[in-house]
Amino acid sequence: MLGQTFQKKIEASSKRNKSKVILALDLEHTDKNILFSKCLEILEKVVSSVCAVKVNRHLILPLDLYDGVKRIITVIHDMGLPTIMDCKINDIGHTNKVIAKHYFDAGFDALIANPFIGWEGGLAPVFELAEKRGKGVILLTYMSHKGAWEGYGQKVLDDSGTERFQYLVFAEKALQWKAAGVIVGATYPEKIREVNSILKGEVSVYSPGVGVQGGKIKEALVAGTNYFIIGRSIIKAEDPYRAVMLFNDIVGSH
Amino acid sequence: MLGQTFQKKIEASSKRNKSKVILALDLEHTDKNILFSKCLEILEKVVSSVCAVKVNRHLILPLDLYDGVKRIITVIHDMGLPTIMDCKINDIGHTNKVIAKHYFDAGFDALIANPFIGWEGGLAPVFELAEKRGKGVILLTYMSHKGAWEGYGQKVLDDSGTERFQYLVFAEKALQWKAAGVIVGATYPEKIREVNSILKGEVSVYSPGVGVQGGKIKEALVAGTNYFIIGRSIIKAEDPYRAVMLFNDIVGSH
Repeated sequence: MLGQTFQKKIEASSKRNKSKVILALDLEHTDKNILFSKCLEILEKVVSSVCAVKVNRHLILPLDLYDGVKRIITVIHDMGLPTIMDCKINDIGHTNKVIAKHYFDAGFDALIANPFIGWEGGLAPVFELAEKRGKGVILLTYMSHKGAWEGYGQKVLDDSGTERFQYLVFAEKALQWKAAGVIVGATYPEKIREVNSILKGEVSVYSPGVGVQGGKIKEALVAGTNYFIIGRSIIKAEDPYRAVMLFNDIVGSH
Repeated sequence: MLGQTFQKKIEASSKRNKSKVILALDLEHTDKNILFSKCLEILEKVVSSVCAVKVNRHLILPLDLYDGVKRIITVIHDMGLPTIMDCKINDIGHTNKVIAKHYFDAGFDALIANPFIGWEGGLAPVFELAEKRGKGVILLTYMSHKGAWEGYGQKVLDDSGTERFQYLVFAEKALQWKAAGVIVGATYPEKIREVNSILKGEVSVYSPGVGVQGGKIKEALVAGTNYFIIGRSIIKAEDPYRAVMLFNDIVGSH
């Protein structure tokens, strides 16, 4: 089954490290050598207490993908954790395949895609490549920012002409396309619940937006979040390890 | 006015080089040195007969942004052409700003964004940064691939509860947000016409999908396309210069 390899990896590391926290390694620095060192420094502190690491363009653009980023992925893999590339892929199929191939070649175990682009000549080649290489595809379903209502929260007419919320249509695509997971902002627990009632546990829910963005862990957990994506609240903390352990304790005591 | 600097640049180079063709420099090669050389080789052949160059992740991911890609941008600027980064930006505002800053710092004059992400905490920081730095933002409105109907072509309920096509809602956002341009696939001339009737010439129409993807230049021109984005039909041609001149002749004879 598509994405199973990735899903098994993250389940295993989550169990081993007793954590549902995915570290978003969104560090910034104008000097690429310092940026690289800062990444290793944070990883050293928290990597044994999170279940995966997510990388975004904060690192991809200043650090060379096949040099700096690949070396960071190797460090993370050596610690037994899977890596997610948050590229929010949304181009035409031919380009999406080029993008996905580069990220998979650099070592990423899963990538995030925007289902708005559609299947034919859109995400189909990404899912095909992921299946072939035992990688996961996670679909954006409802993002954590305020303006998410404009797109993800709009009402659309589905194939039968029935009014539906966009994010529920996306949740159905996630099931149909056999995605490894969906992204629903922790800022919207009621939407996590609705999405989960469609997914029925067959597809995992990943929630960003905890901490700086205001989402509450317990509410999201009750609503059905499987993994929390946390960046700034950890990497900007005076004691990143303690910040992670606080999140783990809240989840563990649930 | 936002994007005016970029719009003036592309208008000037279009007039000077007698071309409405934007070269999509989507070359691929596993060896980054050969890839870099291939870019320069194609540029040398066609740069005096196109009006701008668009770069995608084909180059960003294998070549270092601040090394390889920046050097390519310098070559293009030295030839008097503006550059567009086709990043289809669609993340949360904080990340979008980090991404946009990197691309602008590397020298890009405009970037492509997905309006689906919305304004608040989405594209607002990108438009603000672009305005501050005299750069352009071009919005995806209807893409050229087959699956575009799923998202761009779906019917949505607008703020007043009226059924509208998604791409027409996006065209209105382009006007409202003062975008430098919109992307509408040359594969859909009737949609170019509809979008143009909303934009009324205040925002330029950029059309990919000519050639390999099947769109026809003349139909798109009549419908209102201002610039054509062409990649594979030029870069894979035996004689790239001749391929560009053929496109220029069709447009010129119109």
